Amino acid sequence: MNRSAQYVGDNTFVVAEADAVPPGPGEVRIDVAYTGICGTDLHVAHGAMDRRVRVPAVIGHEMSGRVAEVGAGVEGYRVGEPVTVMPLDWCGECPACRAGHRHVCHRLNFVGIDSPGSMQRSWTVPARLLVPLPEGLPLAHAALVEPTAVAVHDVRRSRLAAGEHAVVVGAGPVGLLIGTVARAVGAEVTVLELDPHRRALAAELGLRALDPAAVDVARHVHEATGGAGAAVVFEVSGSAAGVRTATDLLAVRGRLVVVAIHPTPPAVDLHRVFWRELELIGVRVYERDDYTEAVRLVHDGQVPAERLITRIVPLTEVAEAFRALAAGGEVKVLVDCGGAA
Amino acid sequence: MNRSAQYVGDNTFVVAEADAVPPGPGEVRIDVAYTGICGTDLHVAHGAMDRRVRVPAVIGHEMSGRVAEVGAGVEGYRVGEPVTVMPLDWCGECPACRAGHRHVCHRLNFVGIDSPGSMQRSWTVPARLLVPLPEGLPLAHAALVEPTAVAVHDVRRSRLAAGEHAVVVGAGPVGLLIGTVARAVGAEVTVLELDPHRRALAAELGLRALDPAAVDVARHVHEATGGAGAAVVFEVSGSAAGVRTATDLLAVRGRLVVVAIHPTPPAVDLHRVFWRELELIGVRVYERDDYTEAVRLVHDGQVPAERLITRIVPLTEVAEAFRALAAGGEVKVLVDCGGAA
Repeated sequence: MNRSAQYVGDNTFVVAEADAVPPGPGEVRIDVAYTGICGTDLHVAHGAMDRRVRVPAVIGHEMSGRVAEVGAGVEGYRVGEPVTVMPLDWCGECPACRAGHRHVCHRLNFVGIDSPGSMQRSWTVPARLLVPLPEGLPLAHAALVEPTAVAVHDVRRSRLAAGEHAVVVGAGPVGLLIGTVARAVGAEVTVLELDPHRRALAAELGLRALDPAAVDVARHVHEATGGAGAAVVFEVSGSAAGVRTATDLLAVRGRLVVVAIHPTPPAVDLHRVFWRELELIGVRVYERDDYTEAVRLVHDGQVPAERLITRIVPLTEVAEAFRALAAGGEVKVLVDCGGAA
Repeated sequence: MNRSAQYVGDNTFVVAEADAVPPGPGEVRIDVAYTGICGTDLHVAHGAMDRRVRVPAVIGHEMSGRVAEVGAGVEGYRVGEPVTVMPLDWCGECPACRAGHRHVCHRLNFVGIDSPGSMQRSWTVPARLLVPLPEGLPLAHAALVEPTAVAVHDVRRSRLAAGEHAVVVGAGPVGLLIGTVARAVGAEVTVLELDPHRRALAAELGLRALDPAAVDVARHVHEATGGAGAAVVFEVSGSAAGVRTATDLLAVRGRLVVVAIHPTPPAVDLHRVFWRELELIGVRVYERDDYTEAVRLVHDGQVPAERLITRIVPLTEVAEAFRALAAGGEVKVLVDCGGAA
């Protein structure tokens, strides 16, 4: 039997029982250990993505588990092996795929949104999506590999180098992960966050955390960089003010990484972009190498998974998990899907 | 004696006669052959830069000439040698200079705006600003080296490669030069221009020129690129509509080069930047290598200087040259400064 949490619309989840789906050729069935809930899942629950998500839907794409059953023709995986899934399934034929940018395929299937996800005990997926995990990595921590891969991708696209100064605007889970990955690269990191709880957590993680409403951030960065400005700013707030702050803080040839999604096009100071030869860099999900590096960073403890996971709830209490996350105060909430044994 | 055109404010120029300035140590006096008039000069004449330009001012920074006199300690230049000037004088000490980005020095002296320029018969400048010219290059053509260096810099920063599709939004002198430099790189080039005269000139130069008010440009680029979109868009219109067109046309991982100056921050579709992993790249003036390459392109005829120079006026008629340029219909207007002999 398989147990799943199904989103049925209007912020409502029901728990359903059904037969597990046996793996077809090229597929693997996974006993799901943990599934993390991310901002996109919250958007889905709030109905913001109803046009894209077909209900009833099993969502979830930040996960860890063990191989439970291997379909015909699958090589390289054995039952019991710890794995995670890189939830991108591309067409391989569109211009983006042919140019080698498969993670931004024109017809990308984002698994867990466009097709069934991991908020269930038993999950059957194409074997090509699997990423092996090291045995010593706790499976709860491994559920953070996916959001860490986002951060790794963003830092890699920024070309951030050791000794450079990076500013992260916004200290939600993604902002905190970007901050820790940027530090792992050897950068000096300043995090800007209005919320005192998130700021406190950033400071606990060893990041310099400032309140942009209370501190003259421009002056701070100016002094910290000998008048140069920041080499990189990661805009993770999704606000027009965040974009303005970013262009203001950047050094000559600085890079603004647009991490947050801006549904409404904000005004961008293109005069500053010209004057300082700035770059704006769009980033979306991750590539395979980012996943591999994310596994390494979580395994090494450079990403402090233990401190980022603030709550674990059983699959039967998914609705409560979403409520807690929406209320604020939590960082990363995991759903225990029952396959961790 | 030296004769110069002096901007005295309010769109007014007067011709003045004075002794030539002998070169001090490290300086060279140049007999100026030609000085081109650019959009920035037009802004100056219209009073838009009165806070920066101290009148009476000799402006002009697109020039060619011959060494007339060499100051003490200057090596490597001989009297009569053809030269141009790269009109950037940097401090060498600010964070941008120390990082190797001297062309965007925090205290940049842009010669011809912040200090006296070349709209005069005899011009004395630091020898370090000189760039040698090949003997066979007509001095009138050589006055186009500076704007060509702008185009070379913009194309280099875009990382445009042979076989890629580039769109140039706006076919003024800079847009046309970018189009020809992009073609020299081996790219397919489409130029968008509302003005029929400029469009006709672009077509004469062998560029594909479209009227964005009459043609479905997105469809055109879609078909020309097998559905991928443009690899690079150069925004040379300075309009919010141009920026919007640029983000719409770009392929996954496409680069938008912000060439035009946008005094008012336009709305930028950062959702598209995220979705297609676009880059926006700020560009300002040029570096020494761009100048060297510009000399080569003008000398080789890859930049069709002959066709871009639509008028040459004597120094005594500078006011008329500015009027003609402001009225439209001209592309590149040169001032004959008298030192071409």
